[in-house]
Amino acid sequence: MLKRFSVSIDKLLIEQFDSFIKKNKFANRSQAIGHLVREALVGLEWEDNKEVAGALTLVYDHHKRDLVKQLLGIQHDFTNNIISSQHVHLDHKNCLEIIVVKGKAKQIRELLNRLKSIKGLKHIALTATTTGAQI
Amino acid sequence: MLKRFSVSIDKLLIEQFDSFIKKNKFANRSQAIGHLVREALVGLEWEDNKEVAGALTLVYDHHKRDLVKQLLGIQHDFTNNIISSQHVHLDHKNCLEIIVVKGKAKQIRELLNRLKSIKGLKHIALTATTTGAQI
Amino acid sequence: MLKRFSVSIDKLLIEQFDSFIKKNKFANRSQAIGHLVREALVGLEWEDNKEVAGALTLVYDHHKRDLVKQLLGIQHDFTNNIISSQHVHLDHKNCLEIIVVKGKAKQIRELLNRLKSIKGLKHIALTATTTGAQI
Amino acid sequence: MLKRFSVSIDKLLIEQFDSFIKKNKFANRSQAIGHLVREALVGLEWEDNKEVAGALTLVYDHHKRDLVKQLLGIQHDFTNNIISSQHVHLDHKNCLEIIVVKGKAKQIRELLNRLKSIKGLKHIALTATTTGAQI
Repeated sequence: MLKRFSVSIDKLLIEQFDSFIKKNKFANRSQAIGHLVREALVGLEWEDNKEVAGALTLVYDHHKRDLVKQLLGIQHDFTNNIISSQHVHLDHKNCLEIIVVKGKAKQIRELLNRLKSIKGLKHIALTATTTGAQI
Repeated sequence: MLKRFSVSIDKLLIEQFDSFIKKNKFANRSQAIGHLVREALVGLEWEDNKEVAGALTLVYDHHKRDLVKQLLGIQHDFTNNIISSQHVHLDHKNCLEIIVVKGKAKQIRELLNRLKSIKGLKHIALTATTTGAQI
Repeated sequence: MLKRFSVSIDKLLIEQFDSFIKKNKFANRSQAIGHLVREALVGLEWEDNKEVAGALTLVYDHHKRDLVKQLLGIQHDFTNNIISSQHVHLDHKNCLEIIVVKGKAKQIRELLNRLKSIKGLKHIALTATTTGAQI
Repeated sequence: MLKRFSVSIDKLLIEQFDSFIKKNKFANRSQAIGHLVREALVGLEWEDNKEVAGALTLVYDHHKRDLVKQLLGIQHDFTNNIISSQHVHLDHKNCLEIIVVKGKAKQIRELLNRLKSIKGLKHIALTATTTGAQI
């Protein structure tokens, strides 16, 4: 349900904001402000250790001995946080795997830390997003 | 194939680095240095508009009119860059979708910009990673 | 000069936003929205290579041979971009120096790159801000 | 005092790293590795709430009523953390001020939060660096 309220900001700032809106193809000021507010709130959910969602993106060479075994082993310690995963064969040796996670922000970071030290991992990144339940 | 070389850094710095290694559970200095070097190189691949891989994570309310239609429409303009996607039903109304992408860094950013302005989107994030081909 | 306009966003989102406002001690929604909008616009000024302001923060051991000489030499190639600098003696050997810069975003980044490779530098960071002229 | 140790990393990775070194004008692998290690350690000092140094960069219109008074008032609650400040007149109305800070990371963040809500502030940014004492 939408709710309307009024905002007063500097005239010059509004002009610049309207260019920003046009550049980013937002439909109007409300959509753009909604976007900025949500960005800020997602950040806060992670800071405040709220229930969040996220994605762990890993790139690795699947020939590395024990890598896949370690990767699965660690995931099984976090079954409450792992929803599903997606696997892409990038080339003959490289794999990209994305693990969708949900839970307290701290637990998700702990899972990241556990995975980070797997031998043979080329890159790992955590994407912080929201469950959408509150925002 | 591993190659060995020697490094000289400040004694005090090494001590601090060894604590960092322990805290992050890296097996040894070589693994930790490999990790830091790869992080820097992934950043460079994106800056230099190289062939990269990535993930676009979206959270949205699937009841929003036309959202799913728009989402599919835009993706079909980038079929060369989109490898696959994964969909999670977070709750009755919220969806989390992760699109795995590959291609020139600039094209991936353009896709992000196109998706960002979809009406009803709650959050979108781009995860920058590597194809692993060069690193 | 302030200008008033109205915004429609989701009721639930407003509630969360009001908590964010309270937590951050903003006076009201207008101030908080102004803050978020300015943050976005500062980012855009840097992306679009506009006239920007910034700060380069360096920490170094002043005993390192030639460091101070190199530091001054590079700065003299960027006299158009450097406004002033501030020097703090952190302890017997460590110095913190902050160089205030102004100019096109790309030139500022070039200065950062030149300084980064000075031998003996412990840390360097670029703070991106605005001249305030447009926002 | 320098200390030497040997590192084994992938041959292909070393080649890419050598391009990175050349591009960034680092003198050699040791300097580049020292740079990456220090970056990681500075991050850790802030995460672990260690004694750190930093800079708070503010841009504001000095005509805004009470702004300067508020700015000074808050700083006087943090005299133990504030070392010095530098002020630049960007144009007729805009000021850039950089406050050099030192102390526990959490206290510095608290000071940032206090300053963030000052009415009339255009932008504020915190630069996280190190006292250099441990690295």
